[in-house]
Amino acid sequence: MLAVVKEAPVPGVSVKDIPRPSAKPGEVLVRVQASSICGTDVSIYDWTPWAAGHITPPMVVGHELVGEILEINGDPGALRAGDLVSSETHIFDGTCYQCQIGNQHICENMELFGIGRDGGFAEYATIPIRTTWRNDPSLDPEVMSAQEPLGNAVHVVTKADVPGKTVLVLGLGPVGLAAVAVARAYGAKRVIGVNRGAFRRELAVKMGADEVLESVPSSLHGRADVVLEMSGNVAAIEDALAAARIAGRIVWFGIPKAPASIDIGKYIINKELAFESVFGRRIWQTWHQVSDLLLSGRVDLATLVTHRFRLAEFEEALRVMRSGQCGKVVLTL
Amino acid sequence: MLAVVKEAPVPGVSVKDIPRPSAKPGEVLVRVQASSICGTDVSIYDWTPWAAGHITPPMVVGHELVGEILEINGDPGALRAGDLVSSETHIFDGTCYQCQIGNQHICENMELFGIGRDGGFAEYATIPIRTTWRNDPSLDPEVMSAQEPLGNAVHVVTKADVPGKTVLVLGLGPVGLAAVAVARAYGAKRVIGVNRGAFRRELAVKMGADEVLESVPSSLHGRADVVLEMSGNVAAIEDALAAARIAGRIVWFGIPKAPASIDIGKYIINKELAFESVFGRRIWQTWHQVSDLLLSGRVDLATLVTHRFRLAEFEEALRVMRSGQCGKVVLTL
Amino acid sequence: MLAVVKEAPVPGVSVKDIPRPSAKPGEVLVRVQASSICGTDVSIYDWTPWAAGHITPPMVVGHELVGEILEINGDPGALRAGDLVSSETHIFDGTCYQCQIGNQHICENMELFGIGRDGGFAEYATIPIRTTWRNDPSLDPEVMSAQEPLGNAVHVVTKADVPGKTVLVLGLGPVGLAAVAVARAYGAKRVIGVNRGAFRRELAVKMGADEVLESVPSSLHGRADVVLEMSGNVAAIEDALAAARIAGRIVWFGIPKAPASIDIGKYIINKELAFESVFGRRIWQTWHQVSDLLLSGRVDLATLVTHRFRLAEFEEALRVMRSGQCGKVVLTL
Amino acid sequence: MLAVVKEAPVPGVSVKDIPRPSAKPGEVLVRVQASSICGTDVSIYDWTPWAAGHITPPMVVGHELVGEILEINGDPGALRAGDLVSSETHIFDGTCYQCQIGNQHICENMELFGIGRDGGFAEYATIPIRTTWRNDPSLDPEVMSAQEPLGNAVHVVTKADVPGKTVLVLGLGPVGLAAVAVARAYGAKRVIGVNRGAFRRELAVKMGADEVLESVPSSLHGRADVVLEMSGNVAAIEDALAAARIAGRIVWFGIPKAPASIDIGKYIINKELAFESVFGRRIWQTWHQVSDLLLSGRVDLATLVTHRFRLAEFEEALRVMRSGQCGKVVLTL
Repeated sequence: MLAVVKEAPVPGVSVKDIPRPSAKPGEVLVRVQASSICGTDVSIYDWTPWAAGHITPPMVVGHELVGEILEINGDPGALRAGDLVSSETHIFDGTCYQCQIGNQHICENMELFGIGRDGGFAEYATIPIRTTWRNDPSLDPEVMSAQEPLGNAVHVVTKADVPGKTVLVLGLGPVGLAAVAVARAYGAKRVIGVNRGAFRRELAVKMGADEVLESVPSSLHGRADVVLEMSGNVAAIEDALAAARIAGRIVWFGIPKAPASIDIGKYIINKELAFESVFGRRIWQTWHQVSDLLLSGRVDLATLVTHRFRLAEFEEALRVMRSGQCGKVVLTL
Repeated sequence: MLAVVKEAPVPGVSVKDIPRPSAKPGEVLVRVQASSICGTDVSIYDWTPWAAGHITPPMVVGHELVGEILEINGDPGALRAGDLVSSETHIFDGTCYQCQIGNQHICENMELFGIGRDGGFAEYATIPIRTTWRNDPSLDPEVMSAQEPLGNAVHVVTKADVPGKTVLVLGLGPVGLAAVAVARAYGAKRVIGVNRGAFRRELAVKMGADEVLESVPSSLHGRADVVLEMSGNVAAIEDALAAARIAGRIVWFGIPKAPASIDIGKYIINKELAFESVFGRRIWQTWHQVSDLLLSGRVDLATLVTHRFRLAEFEEALRVMRSGQCGKVVLTL
Repeated sequence: MLAVVKEAPVPGVSVKDIPRPSAKPGEVLVRVQASSICGTDVSIYDWTPWAAGHITPPMVVGHELVGEILEINGDPGALRAGDLVSSETHIFDGTCYQCQIGNQHICENMELFGIGRDGGFAEYATIPIRTTWRNDPSLDPEVMSAQEPLGNAVHVVTKADVPGKTVLVLGLGPVGLAAVAVARAYGAKRVIGVNRGAFRRELAVKMGADEVLESVPSSLHGRADVVLEMSGNVAAIEDALAAARIAGRIVWFGIPKAPASIDIGKYIINKELAFESVFGRRIWQTWHQVSDLLLSGRVDLATLVTHRFRLAEFEEALRVMRSGQCGKVVLTL
Repeated sequence: MLAVVKEAPVPGVSVKDIPRPSAKPGEVLVRVQASSICGTDVSIYDWTPWAAGHITPPMVVGHELVGEILEINGDPGALRAGDLVSSETHIFDGTCYQCQIGNQHICENMELFGIGRDGGFAEYATIPIRTTWRNDPSLDPEVMSAQEPLGNAVHVVTKADVPGKTVLVLGLGPVGLAAVAVARAYGAKRVIGVNRGAFRRELAVKMGADEVLESVPSSLHGRADVVLEMSGNVAAIEDALAAARIAGRIVWFGIPKAPASIDIGKYIINKELAFESVFGRRIWQTWHQVSDLLLSGRVDLATLVTHRFRLAEFEEALRVMRSGQCGKVVLTL
C-alpha cells in the first residue's frame, strides 16, 4: 500500500509502497478515506529536536484520519465492521492514576499514534480499539478527518468559560481558527482574532470572528476577559498577559519553542489572573462536543478545509502547509 | 402627577393624580420615561395572598422602569443628573451577611421597590441610589425599562452552564422567552421551548428557539442536558424532572402556587441531578451581562416588547397581560 | 463453598453449601476474606418491592467484600494473583454516553454486583476485572471490606464543598457516620449529626461530630451552610430544606420510600438553594480519595466497625443490623 | 500622639509625636490597641523602588491594626462607638466594574491604607467606614491585629481547593505559615512546608505541617496536587512548576522581585496545570472565613505571634522582622 514513511532520523519523508498492516490484538484495521496534516507532521518531516526525541524510524507518519473498519481484533464494544472511524492520537494506558480518575488525555504513560507507532498517511492503518471513535455517518469524510484540531479548540474554549465574554484568540492556525468558531458557538460576546498573515485573518472572519487584527494594540491591554494563546509564539506570551483584564483568564495551548520571561507580580498577581492549559482533548467528552457542534451546524468545519491533495502529493501539500496561506489541508486517496 | 395606586387591601388599582414625590436622603428623583408590567403587578392588582402579605396600601405600583435623573440626594457615586437610569427591584441593606459576601440579591433584610415602598407606574419616582442602574444612552428606553426580566433570564442561564447543551425551557412568559434568547446567545446547542399557547411559541421562535412544543412528549424524557423551569406551573415540575438527562441540571425560577410531590429517589438521586435556583438577579454582575447582550446585539429585546400603552390605559394593558397573547407590555407617559 | 443465597422470591435467605464459581472471561476469582452488610442486603432479605424489581433468584447475596485474587481470566491490567481486592458494586458497561464522558458510576446500562448477578457473601466470588479495586496491603481487611459506604460519604462530601462550612448530617447510619468523619477531615468548620437513636449519636461523636442532636430544632433553621441528607426518611426532607441557610446547598443521598411534598418557592427559590445528589461513588476517583483518607489516618474506619460475625451467623448479624445499635457489621469466614 | 512616620523619600522612619487625626466624612476614628508589622512595612522603611512608586511622604506607616471606635463620621451601618475594629488595607472605590461585580479586593482605582494615605502605627488612626471590620469581641486583640495575613492565606487556600490533597507550601513567612494552618484546617491530606530557615520550619510544624523541608527534593517533583507559592523567591518558581503533579494547581501569592523564565510547554501545557493567583483577600467574604476559623479554634493564630514590642520600640521590632527568626511581630501601646 502507499504510505508516507519517515525512514531515517533526518529531514524528509518517503512516499512509497509498504506492506499492508494487520490488526494486532486490541486493534482495528481500517481502509483510510481521508487524513489531515497537523503542524506536528511538519516537525516530523523537518526532524526537529522534538521529533528526534519522540520518533524511532522507520514509521508511517500521520495521526488525523478517517477510515472504514475492515476488521476488529478483540472486544468490539460498540464498534462494527463498516463503521467510519477516526483515531484519537493519545493512546492512554487505562491503568495509571490519571486514567483512573478520568483524565485519560493526560495519561502518565502515553503512547502517540503516528509518532510513537505507525500512523495513518497510508491506504490502510491500524488503530487501538480504545482510541477509535465511531463517527456519525452523516458527516463529510473530510470533516471526519479534521476533528482533532476542532477537539483541541473545544477543550480550550470549554476551559475558558466564554459565554458573554470578550475573547482574544492569539494565533490563527487551524486550531486557532477552530477556536474562533467554537468561542462564537459557545456564546462569546465578541471574538477578536490576531494573526500576522492576512489569509488567516480573512479565514477567521469566515469562521465567525467579530474583529481581526495584525497584532495586539495597547488599546486592548486589560480588555480581554479571556485570552486563548494558540500561536506558540514566545512574543505572544506578553501580549496575552497584557491583554487580559483584571480577574481575567488565559488558556495556554500553543507550545512556545523557548522559555519566556514572565513578570508574575505585574501580570499575574496584580491582576489576579487565572490560567488554564490544554493538552490534547478529553477522551471522549470532547469528541462528543465536537460531534454535537458539527451535527447541529453550530460550527462549519468544511470552511476550515481550504486545500485537498492526493496522498501521493504529500510534498506539495506540505509546501502549502508551510506557506500559511491555508486552513486545514486534507489528503485523500 | 398621574400614578397607578393600590389604595386599599382589595382587588383593583386606581389611576389617579397624587403629589409628586421628592428624593429623601440616599435617593434619586427621576422623571419616568417608560415602565414595564411584570406578573407580580397582576398579583398586586388581584390582591393575592402573596400581595396581601407583602403590601401595605396605599402604594404606587410598578417596579420596572427607566427614568431621567432630576435630583440626587446624597453621594452620587457615578450617577449624574440627566442620566437615564433603571431601578433594581431588590433593595438590599448592604450590611447583612449575604450582602457582605457579595450576594446582595438575596439580602437577608430585603425591601422591594413597588411592593414594600412606592414604585414607578407614575410620572415621577424616587429610587434608592444604591439600586439605581445607569443605562448606556444608546439603548431604546423601552428596552431600558424591560431589563429586569432579561436579567432574571441571564441569571438563570448563567447558572445553567449551557454551552453545547440541549436546553429545555418550560414556560414562555416574558422571562422564559428571554431565557430562550439568552440560552441561544450563550451557546446552547439546541433550545426547545414549551408553552400551551401558540402566540408565545411563535414568539419563542423569533427569540431563537430551535423547536417549540405544546407540552413535553415522553420522547424527550431523559434527553435535556439542562431544564429551565420558568412556568411556575405545578404540573411542569414533573416534566422538568422527567426530561432531565442523567447527570443533568435543572434551574428553578418559576414559583409554583402550591407544594409539589417529588420522588427524590427516582428523579433526583437515580439520575444524580443537580439543581440550581434563581431569585432576582446578581447586583450588578447580571446588569452588566444584560447590558453587554443588548449592546452587542446578541439579544434583541425589542422583539419581546409586543404591546405599548399610555399609563392612563393601565387597565387595558393588564387585560392584554392576562390574555397570554403578548410578550412584554410597556407603559409610556 | 458456604454462601448466603437468595433462593426464591420471598423473604429470607439460605446459608448453604453451593459449588465454587469459576472466573468467566473478563473476571477475577477471589477467596473472600471479609464482607460487610449494607442496608440493601436487608431489603433483599425482606424482599421489598425494590428487591423484587431488581433480583432474579437464585443469587448469592452481598456486594461489599475483600478477597485475594486466585485467578484472572483476561487482560489483568495492573492486577496480579495474590492481590487483596475489593469490588465496586456498580458494573458499568464502558461504552454508553455517561461512561464515555467519565461518569461510569451512573452508567446507562448498569449491572449490580450481588443484586443483578452473584455477589460476595460466600467463601469465593467472581468479580468483573473492570470493577476490581486493588487495595493497599497495609490496610486492615475489615476496613478493606467496608470502603463502599466510606466512598458514598466521600462522594457526598466532595460534592458538598465543606471547607469552613457548618455541615448538618441528617441520618447517622453507616454512610451518615462516615460522612461525619469525611466532613471533618475535609475541613468543615462544624459538623452536626442528627439521629433518633442514641447509639449512633454516640458513635457520631467518636467519628468527629462537634454536636449531635435527636432532631432538628427550629433554632437551626436557616443556619446550615450545607445539609447532607443521609437518612432516606421522608420527614427529614423538610428538615433539610428548613435548615439550609440562604444560598446554602443540600446533597441528597438517602432514598426516601415515598414521594415528598416540597414547596419549591418557599424553600428552594426564596433561599436560592443549590442541590446536588449522589448515586454510588466515582470510579475510581472516589476510591483513590477513600484510600488516601485511610492511609493518611484522616479517617479511622475501624471505629465504624462495631460488630463481627462468621458468615454462618448471617441471620444474627442481620438482627444486629436491624436494631440500629451498630455501626458497620462485618462478616468473616 | 506617638506615631511611626515616613518623613522623607529616603530609608528610615521617625517615631515621633504628631497631632491626633480626626475622622473626615466617611471615616471612623479609632484608638489603636495593637498593630502588626507586614513585610510591606519593611519595604517602606527601606524605601524600595516599589515604596518610592506608591508613597508620598510624610505619612503614618502601618496597615494591620485593631482599635476601638471613638467616633463615626457618616452612616455607621452596623458599626458603633466602642466596637473593636480592624482595617482592611485595600480601600476600594465601590463604583468601578470590579467593585460592581463583587471583586472589591481588586478594585480598578484602589487606595492603600498606610501606603497611599496615613495608616495605623500610631495611638490613633482614621479608617474609611467601608473598609472597617467589626471584630467579635471574644478574640484576643493581638489576634485581631493580625487577621490580614491570615486572610491572605484563607484566600489562597480557598482558591487552591485542598480537601484530600497533598499541599506544598513554598515559603514560611507569616502568610506561608498561616497557609499551612489553613490548608490543614480546610482538609488537606498532607501539608509540606519548605523554608531555608529552621526557625520557621519549626513554627510550621506547630501550625500543623505534616512535614517540613529545607528545599524541594527532586523526589517531590510531580507529586504535589497543589502548590502554594508564598515566598516571592524567583528560584521558587521553578520548584513550584516542577513539584506540581499532572493536572495540578499552583496558587501564586508571593511577588517575585524580578521576571522569571518559564517553560510554558514543559511545565504548564504538558502537565495541563491550572494557575490561580491571589491579591489581598475578598471583602468581606474572606474576613468572615477568618473569623470563623478563629472562633471555632480550627486555626490558632496566637501561635503565629512570636514577638511583641511597644510602638516606641519600632526599630527593634523591625530588626527581629528582618532576622527571619520570628512569626508575626505585634506592636502595642
